[in-house]
Amino acid sequence: MTKLTIWTYEWVPQPPRGFVRDMRLRWACEEAGFTYSVRTVPFEDRGPEHLARQPFGQIPFLTDGDVQIFESGACLLHLARKSEKLMPRDPVAEAETTQWLLAALNSVEMVAVPWWFLEVSGAKENKLEPWMGKRLDQLEKVLSEREWLVANRFTAADLLMADVLRVPKVRAFGQRPATEAYVTRVTSRPAFEKARADQLAHFAAADATRQ
Amino acid sequence: MTKLTIWTYEWVPQPPRGFVRDMRLRWACEEAGFTYSVRTVPFEDRGPEHLARQPFGQIPFLTDGDVQIFESGACLLHLARKSEKLMPRDPVAEAETTQWLLAALNSVEMVAVPWWFLEVSGAKENKLEPWMGKRLDQLEKVLSEREWLVANRFTAADLLMADVLRVPKVRAFGQRPATEAYVTRVTSRPAFEKARADQLAHFAAADATRQ
Repeated sequence: MTKLTIWTYEWVPQPPRGFVRDMRLRWACEEAGFTYSVRTVPFEDRGPEHLARQPFGQIPFLTDGDVQIFESGACLLHLARKSEKLMPRDPVAEAETTQWLLAALNSVEMVAVPWWFLEVSGAKENKLEPWMGKRLDQLEKVLSEREWLVANRFTAADLLMADVLRVPKVRAFGQRPATEAYVTRVTSRPAFEKARADQLAHFAAADATRQ
Repeated sequence: MTKLTIWTYEWVPQPPRGFVRDMRLRWACEEAGFTYSVRTVPFEDRGPEHLARQPFGQIPFLTDGDVQIFESGACLLHLARKSEKLMPRDPVAEAETTQWLLAALNSVEMVAVPWWFLEVSGAKENKLEPWMGKRLDQLEKVLSEREWLVANRFTAADLLMADVLRVPKVRAFGQRPATEAYVTRVTSRPAFEKARADQLAHFAAADATRQ
């Protein structure tokens, strides 16, 4: 197996720690049992080298031998194809994993992130709220009928859906017991705990260097 | 090859015609030379049968033998893996195609659709405008340096990026000549014209039935 490297920021302020999107790749590697190293780009000064690798100035990106990928969803799909633990190998379940992974990004996160953005920017009326409520209600119905999104087992689709839903404001929006139980179930996995502890330690080490 | 079926609405009102998301799959099939049939679900009454297939009540979905997929991005990835015309076969370019396909959905459309939604809902101040402008500026820089997103040739990533950008309000937002030339270049392809004409004819036929 080629060497996996996850790229993230060297340092970030306290609030996003535990939620920075390199979590998605760390968590996937822990689930699959992949070893990986972590490399960094500066948080404050996103210079030409970073933008040449990631034109939107975001992280994470992943290198796997000659392959370089950005977009956490694309990186996850790449990792998922390398391990049955992340994505079943039969074509029907593989298509369903891809479908739910895309649904997490393009049907749920596409509403949740702009909704969250309007919430924190202090808009008097959040015009995305009805759309957000409708999406979460539709998802609540799905999650009240199954424990995992695909094939009665954990897949990368659950990893991504739970990561989108665990953002505190999103999680606290409305009373949706099946969704709450699902987020708890998925984020109770040891691979999540390990990835989260590693991310927190990474940024804490950067604090120490800065002092 | 198994039989491909694209599912869309039986009818929609005039404004979204030519933009309904079954376009993405029709267009991909035309590019790849795949034959496909079209089946429909009602637009106005999204009943239990539709929701069992697509829990968010959206279209398109795709059937390919035993495989059933929703989310236009997931359907496109499925089609792209079946044809080199949509996605190069070497691992580096395949990863880049996936990356840009996800960027179209999760870095550009994730801002553009909620921004558009606030525009048409008549919000006095569109708080998503600075984010939207920044994303389009970042993309303008990329598109001023290359004709196609990946491998110096058309791929499914261009199909999806151009489909996100061609929405009239998005296309008209700001002066971005490289982006404008790109959207013109990608949507001038005969496969796009064919897919668009077929979608318009599909809804026109439904008008006739309704009278």
